[in-house]
Amino acid sequence: MTMEIVSENKSHGGRQIVAKHRSSATSTEMSFSIFLPPQAEGGGKLPLVWFLSGLTCSPMNVTEKGEYRAACAEHGLIFVAPDTSPRGDDVPDVEEYDFGKGAGFYVDATQEPWAKHFRMWAYVAEELPALIARQFPADMERQGISGHSMGGHGALTLVLRNPGRFRSVSAFSPIVAPSQVPWGQKALGGYLGGDENAWLQHDAVALIEDGARLPELLVDVGTDDPFLTEQLRPELLERACSEAEIPLTLRLQPGYDHSYYFVSTFMADHLRWHKERLG
Amino acid sequence: MTMEIVSENKSHGGRQIVAKHRSSATSTEMSFSIFLPPQAEGGGKLPLVWFLSGLTCSPMNVTEKGEYRAACAEHGLIFVAPDTSPRGDDVPDVEEYDFGKGAGFYVDATQEPWAKHFRMWAYVAEELPALIARQFPADMERQGISGHSMGGHGALTLVLRNPGRFRSVSAFSPIVAPSQVPWGQKALGGYLGGDENAWLQHDAVALIEDGARLPELLVDVGTDDPFLTEQLRPELLERACSEAEIPLTLRLQPGYDHSYYFVSTFMADHLRWHKERLG
Repeated sequence: MTMEIVSENKSHGGRQIVAKHRSSATSTEMSFSIFLPPQAEGGGKLPLVWFLSGLTCSPMNVTEKGEYRAACAEHGLIFVAPDTSPRGDDVPDVEEYDFGKGAGFYVDATQEPWAKHFRMWAYVAEELPALIARQFPADMERQGISGHSMGGHGALTLVLRNPGRFRSVSAFSPIVAPSQVPWGQKALGGYLGGDENAWLQHDAVALIEDGARLPELLVDVGTDDPFLTEQLRPELLERACSEAEIPLTLRLQPGYDHSYYFVSTFMADHLRWHKERLG
Repeated sequence: MTMEIVSENKSHGGRQIVAKHRSSATSTEMSFSIFLPPQAEGGGKLPLVWFLSGLTCSPMNVTEKGEYRAACAEHGLIFVAPDTSPRGDDVPDVEEYDFGKGAGFYVDATQEPWAKHFRMWAYVAEELPALIARQFPADMERQGISGHSMGGHGALTLVLRNPGRFRSVSAFSPIVAPSQVPWGQKALGGYLGGDENAWLQHDAVALIEDGARLPELLVDVGTDDPFLTEQLRPELLERACSEAEIPLTLRLQPGYDHSYYFVSTFMADHLRWHKERLG
């Protein structure tokens, strides 16, 4: 599991790195980006925030458009952005943007031809954290996680299924109940087949209804998000959190859409939220 | 000179707009981006900062990677990013990145086949400001200008040749003496031919040496910029400003390169500098 630095640029006093490595989870090369704030030069370990990206994204979308570095430099946070799927010529794909490459949905596929490479759950839950812990000055006792859209789904399910691992969690425009919405039904059906129980293990609202718990939660969604009512359905998360007595701060941001123009607007807010909980 | 909105996204409380219009200067369609901060909803006119981009860039590079919106929202600044050349199938081009499309160099070409469309000086000095003044709540008495690399060259020459128009000026990694460096010699020779006097009208150091003046000036350059010693040569600007008694704040930023990871790091600083001078 050797790692290769693809690029490194000084930014906001720290180092913005893009790296790649051979993944045993996906049996492909995988790339990710990591920002080390200026405090990383001090020799100690720093809290880190994961950011899981949405459909069509590589690690570069948030790296270029996310506007997270100033806040990470201010708060001393490491910021890690994994890819959203395996890549490469031998990885199967479809024409559509919402399945296959760029759309791994943070599950381990069981269906052919996806099962060999589309193992993003194992990758983000196990393999990449182990690599980060070994290669960078990250304090794995102080992890936070966030994500956008499909990545918000990934963040919520990772937190719900790994109690105690993450001290802080937030999401931008998350898919909260994939088993109930078209994007999720297509992805879960395609990668996991017809096994309903397998679906519910990757559905944040279903997990909460089944008793899984997470720390207090910050969620921002734009009122002009074109996917709001059909794919995101934040009211389902609101109801589940209410019934489970999970403290949810759900902010419907007037006039904002689904883009990084929205995400970048509230990124500093989210990172402050994480910093307050990560110490 | 009608204008069409290509996209509009709410961001940082304001509106990030990309627009296009038929240009009489370039005889092509031209696109630009403009950010209207939240204060634009108040009905008054706001100061604006121009940002001229570098080689290979469209307006989208700084729009996506420049991290200017938070500071513009804080200070109430409009931010305008023009394109760097004419575009389109009937616009001549070459294979190289440093001439032709994406490399207009902010001059009005006199040489064939460039003279018809490559009239970026007329475009950024006259046509686009008139359009902005008519279409947006911009206070043209309070204009600042900045730019990156080739765009730093453009910003400096625009200020030097239009005394009194700009109240504030800054640059990131500017080309300061194009007639003395390879990028500039190629561009000025290609667009303007062998007329040395024409070249010197587009050379900031030569203009200063010839008596042109500008307000106090903020320039950031990274010490790890791969173009520092051959193409940028900030020491030539430093000497010219010193002899002309122009107050230059030249900051050699240790470890930074030529990328938007560098530009975005110091963007908020520059916008604060502009705001202090634009009122």
